[in-house]
Amino acid sequence: MSSFTPEPTDDLSIATIRTLAADVVGKANSGHPGAPMGMAPAAHVLFTRFFNANPKSSKWFNRDRFVLSNGCVLQYILLHLLGYKLSVDDLKAFRQLDSLTPGHPEAGHTDGIEVTTGPLGQGFANGVGFAMAQAHLGAVYNRDGFDLINNYTYVFTGDGCLMEGVASEAASLAGHLQLGNLIVVYDDNHISIDGDTAVAFTENVEQRFLSYGWQVLHVDNGDSDLAGISDAITQGRAEKNKPTIIRLRTTIGYGSKQQGTHGVHGSPLKADDIQALKLKAGFPPDKTFYIPKETYDTYKVAALRGAKLQSEWISLLSAYEKRYPNEHAELARRISGKLPDGWEQTLPVYKPSDPAQASRKLSEIVLSVITPGIPDLIGGSADLTGSNLTKVKGSTDFQHPSTNLGTYAGTYIRYGVREHGMGAIANGLSAYGGIVPFVATFLNFVSYAAGAVRLSALSKHQVIWVATHDSIGLGEDGPTHQPIETAVHLRAIPNLDFWRPADGNETSASYLVALRSKETPSVLSLSRQNLPNLEGSTIERASRGGYVLHEVEGEDLTIVSSGSEVSIALEAAGKLKAEGIKTRIVSMPCWSVFDSQDQQYRLSVLRSGAPILSLEALSTTGWQKYSHEQYGLPAWGASGPYQKVYEKFGITGTNIAAVGKKVVQFYREQGVKVISPLVKAL
Amino acid sequence: MSSFTPEPTDDLSIATIRTLAADVVGKANSGHPGAPMGMAPAAHVLFTRFFNANPKSSKWFNRDRFVLSNGCVLQYILLHLLGYKLSVDDLKAFRQLDSLTPGHPEAGHTDGIEVTTGPLGQGFANGVGFAMAQAHLGAVYNRDGFDLINNYTYVFTGDGCLMEGVASEAASLAGHLQLGNLIVVYDDNHISIDGDTAVAFTENVEQRFLSYGWQVLHVDNGDSDLAGISDAITQGRAEKNKPTIIRLRTTIGYGSKQQGTHGVHGSPLKADDIQALKLKAGFPPDKTFYIPKETYDTYKVAALRGAKLQSEWISLLSAYEKRYPNEHAELARRISGKLPDGWEQTLPVYKPSDPAQASRKLSEIVLSVITPGIPDLIGGSADLTGSNLTKVKGSTDFQHPSTNLGTYAGTYIRYGVREHGMGAIANGLSAYGGIVPFVATFLNFVSYAAGAVRLSALSKHQVIWVATHDSIGLGEDGPTHQPIETAVHLRAIPNLDFWRPADGNETSASYLVALRSKETPSVLSLSRQNLPNLEGSTIERASRGGYVLHEVEGEDLTIVSSGSEVSIALEAAGKLKAEGIKTRIVSMPCWSVFDSQDQQYRLSVLRSGAPILSLEALSTTGWQKYSHEQYGLPAWGASGPYQKVYEKFGITGTNIAAVGKKVVQFYREQGVKVISPLVKAL
Repeated sequence: MSSFTPEPTDDLSIATIRTLAADVVGKANSGHPGAPMGMAPAAHVLFTRFFNANPKSSKWFNRDRFVLSNGCVLQYILLHLLGYKLSVDDLKAFRQLDSLTPGHPEAGHTDGIEVTTGPLGQGFANGVGFAMAQAHLGAVYNRDGFDLINNYTYVFTGDGCLMEGVASEAASLAGHLQLGNLIVVYDDNHISIDGDTAVAFTENVEQRFLSYGWQVLHVDNGDSDLAGISDAITQGRAEKNKPTIIRLRTTIGYGSKQQGTHGVHGSPLKADDIQALKLKAGFPPDKTFYIPKETYDTYKVAALRGAKLQSEWISLLSAYEKRYPNEHAELARRISGKLPDGWEQTLPVYKPSDPAQASRKLSEIVLSVITPGIPDLIGGSADLTGSNLTKVKGSTDFQHPSTNLGTYAGTYIRYGVREHGMGAIANGLSAYGGIVPFVATFLNFVSYAAGAVRLSALSKHQVIWVATHDSIGLGEDGPTHQPIETAVHLRAIPNLDFWRPADGNETSASYLVALRSKETPSVLSLSRQNLPNLEGSTIERASRGGYVLHEVEGEDLTIVSSGSEVSIALEAAGKLKAEGIKTRIVSMPCWSVFDSQDQQYRLSVLRSGAPILSLEALSTTGWQKYSHEQYGLPAWGASGPYQKVYEKFGITGTNIAAVGKKVVQFYREQGVKVISPLVKAL
Repeated sequence: MSSFTPEPTDDLSIATIRTLAADVVGKANSGHPGAPMGMAPAAHVLFTRFFNANPKSSKWFNRDRFVLSNGCVLQYILLHLLGYKLSVDDLKAFRQLDSLTPGHPEAGHTDGIEVTTGPLGQGFANGVGFAMAQAHLGAVYNRDGFDLINNYTYVFTGDGCLMEGVASEAASLAGHLQLGNLIVVYDDNHISIDGDTAVAFTENVEQRFLSYGWQVLHVDNGDSDLAGISDAITQGRAEKNKPTIIRLRTTIGYGSKQQGTHGVHGSPLKADDIQALKLKAGFPPDKTFYIPKETYDTYKVAALRGAKLQSEWISLLSAYEKRYPNEHAELARRISGKLPDGWEQTLPVYKPSDPAQASRKLSEIVLSVITPGIPDLIGGSADLTGSNLTKVKGSTDFQHPSTNLGTYAGTYIRYGVREHGMGAIANGLSAYGGIVPFVATFLNFVSYAAGAVRLSALSKHQVIWVATHDSIGLGEDGPTHQPIETAVHLRAIPNLDFWRPADGNETSASYLVALRSKETPSVLSLSRQNLPNLEGSTIERASRGGYVLHEVEGEDLTIVSSGSEVSIALEAAGKLKAEGIKTRIVSMPCWSVFDSQDQQYRLSVLRSGAPILSLEALSTTGWQKYSHEQYGLPAWGASGPYQKVYEKFGITGTNIAAVGKKVVQFYREQGVKVISPLVKAL
């Protein structure tokens, strides 16, 4: 027997969504009408029958999460109908400058949008992150009779998302983790931008998801079989130990004269087509943005259901507070996004006499010290745990309890060799709330996840990348694993802090700033090789992104450097001193944080008067902003013991002293006053 | 009945490979002994019974291709045993500086290495590219009785590669394309760096590959069932309409005391363990790098088989030359890597009065003109054909003939929404020979393929990326699709030419240089919006990477720009002229090509005497190398009609004129001679 009770307004509401999609895209003269028209029935059934959220309180913690992975206008229409802060005028401003309805949904920009989608595959993986966050927080905070965190995550996805490797990675992990509260609706409409999916996408998607361990359902008539859609969602919700995918066979652009063809995918419908569509629905054919009162009423009922559930939840939370005051306090703090008081005081502080250590090891020490006090930190690695040093002793794996390998309350995630999936899942973990995810791989392989990293930054997700083996200093693995272009790539991403700490205090500083930056992702670039603790480094100074590590008055040269090369710069300075050349050393672990300091400070660090030479065992690209001369790698690295690789490329105290001398002589011969590269018109 | 005839030397040879793996890694004190020890039987069966290649002529065109996707020492050992240019001393120099045996195999560096592997998943996808290249060239050049191009591609892969999305993407496409000559051997050893694959990788791999349409076989005892391995390979070769994957259950580090554990994955075996291994094999326990004569003899037989096949093939080719002289001439030319004479003369030339066009459209015009004469060009798009404009009219899709959608002789590949797989497949197409692949997506989504792009550059594969919608100029799709950091990321990759042409002649120039650069990949960054043809641009001038587009003597300002912003710089120059400010315009479509020009030329373009302002609708990072002042995007773009987005960010003639004026005043006030940013000590 079907779970579904039809309502007289169902068809009307679905027609409203379809005609609105046509009108919104038509008005903008840009966008994708086909998919929203095809997915209107599924969206209608989901939001009127199942979805638990309160549009008037869009951040309610236990709300169901909805992700439209193939980000398009459908979500804006639903938000409007449900009563989120999105008016008809906002719909009319679709894809217009500074509107609340940009080309693809952006988290933090529009009320009710959970994650930024459009770049294909990302939303699917974000959804897996949501489901993991729910499973984890539920396991940690739920108690008998207090099922506080039990929301579902619903993802709508199309063929495009499912072709992307990032979605495959996330799907495989979701199956492994047996995430029961994840329900994906796959819009199997047989059309992508190149036309029929027969040209490139003929795999058996159902069988693929079975191989991942998912529950796989299908609805053959997604265009009008509302009961079938409802039953499938019901069955998905009932399955507690597997994620569910529902393959929904739909007709793209359903109702258009061009339905089922590529013609309705990415271009507005013709005016007469829209008119015919409206006539068929019994709507006034010449009226645009027509929304019958009955449709509003229907969605109001859904919204009120969510509001009621929220108020019941608030009562439950109050009872929980009485019964479990400590857990309540911690949960409330985590929901608020505030870290526990005083955690900063636990950060390790070093003095120069402390033994040299790899910054990946220094990172492990930080994590060992701070994670017990910050349960929000949920870490993991893309199968490089022993190299990234991200698993703190005594931590439990995040695993389905049936595996006997861990529990959902575990805080360490085994991502497998799935960097892109990991990055996108971390975005979902962060967006869910209550969690500060850190993820790890070699710096070079952060590039595999570039698509997810830029969306962290655009969406203001606080994700921390522990990116070890960050230069030729990894040695033997060779050029295939040695980053060259990676640092400047990440440094050029807006709202992303790329840290390359030089020693223990700087490593602590990078964690300090990364954890304080609630709306900025960070990449911590860490060495495989040992680094000495430096005279002059402090957490406070390094927290400014760049500072004078070694001050000299009346210098002949300043060397600005980062990470593992700072101690080499210091060594060069010593050798230059013996030759009578006074050399200042600036350590610059983070460009973007240095850029955010006031001009006076920045000019005091990179001051006029003597040439500035940058030193980094990476591409020199970008260092011209902070220096007159640059020394780095001319091209690729090399395989060998790391000291020999450094020698090969002249990154040694002796050679850098020689380079510095050449720089000093050159600027002396020029005979003009050397002005700081920061002194600029713009 | 089994296809396999055991030889008395089989066990001895396999033991040789295993002990060599232990010795090589032991000597280097770095590397992965476990996988080669586990895969030794499969490698032995493949190379002694099936593999067709001539070690003394390692570039023979119809050789079988072998890819060790989980790139490790196994391949070096096989190359040595088979008689490629790799000595025992080279094995002893494993992972040492400047050796022929770097940490991971690098194409072009070591004789017999087809593609660079190590970064996981890449080799798998390269193998799909090899199989596509064979299918295509076979379809084009084979004739009845002349099965000239019919090699197999064998890929060894581990769990790590199969977890990567890039491999999933390529596997799905390989199944769709029904590539019969592709045989993948999957080392199912249950171990990855984090330990047992049970922690993260529990999907049903066999079922997954069935879903992709592959033939799926398995051998339960990969440690010693040589007949089983042989039978599976035989069955793989017999299946002509599906790629084959053979799941081989092996014991990692087989023969070691620690076999089957994570302990043998990435660390050398202990000395006593190696000794015991040798004793068990009947080898002198204290002798390292011991290779019995019988093993050499066995592999010599295999090598001679390949040499004989090559000589038969050369005879066949001679007969083909007589029967099909035109086809032979073209095939020989393609194998040589030389493009047809005179193709450059067909490149379109524009004058300023020609209508404005988008550079993606200009790219389409180039492709329409040159592809008929250059059959080597095999194009495709990641499901953005109509936007990238990469499918030339009349071209046929590359598809299995049974689909009725195209043929293997077709030159247009429907990659699906699989950017990373596309990039890695293109590396395989290029490495195969006879093909110059071009691939397409939006510039922003080249980032999804970053892992493959850097390997193109490291491995010197000539792959051309047609990267359209290259800035905020794409307009409505908004920040999720608008590249910011992408250009500087690609510009910082060694041996990669990033072109951003400003008009028709520059687009022709970018294709000219990209096609002439046989060992360098190129990314062509192209606009969605129309661009006027510029006074002063010529193919020849633009081919130098940067040139003076608009010369003025005694200038007050030089603006250096690229792509769609060059015409805006020109507009600003006109406005500044009206205010008495003389402005030169430099167009710099390609940094790396400009950098390769002689110093005198470069200094003539970016000369001292007046400030230089860069202008680009992207991150300004990196432009400091070529300019004193930079104007670009401060952060993310915006969704809206593109002209409005340009206005929002002040990238208009009027505002740039104002910015230029400010720059001129600032440097006047400084009162010092302005020196070119190219005048440097280093």
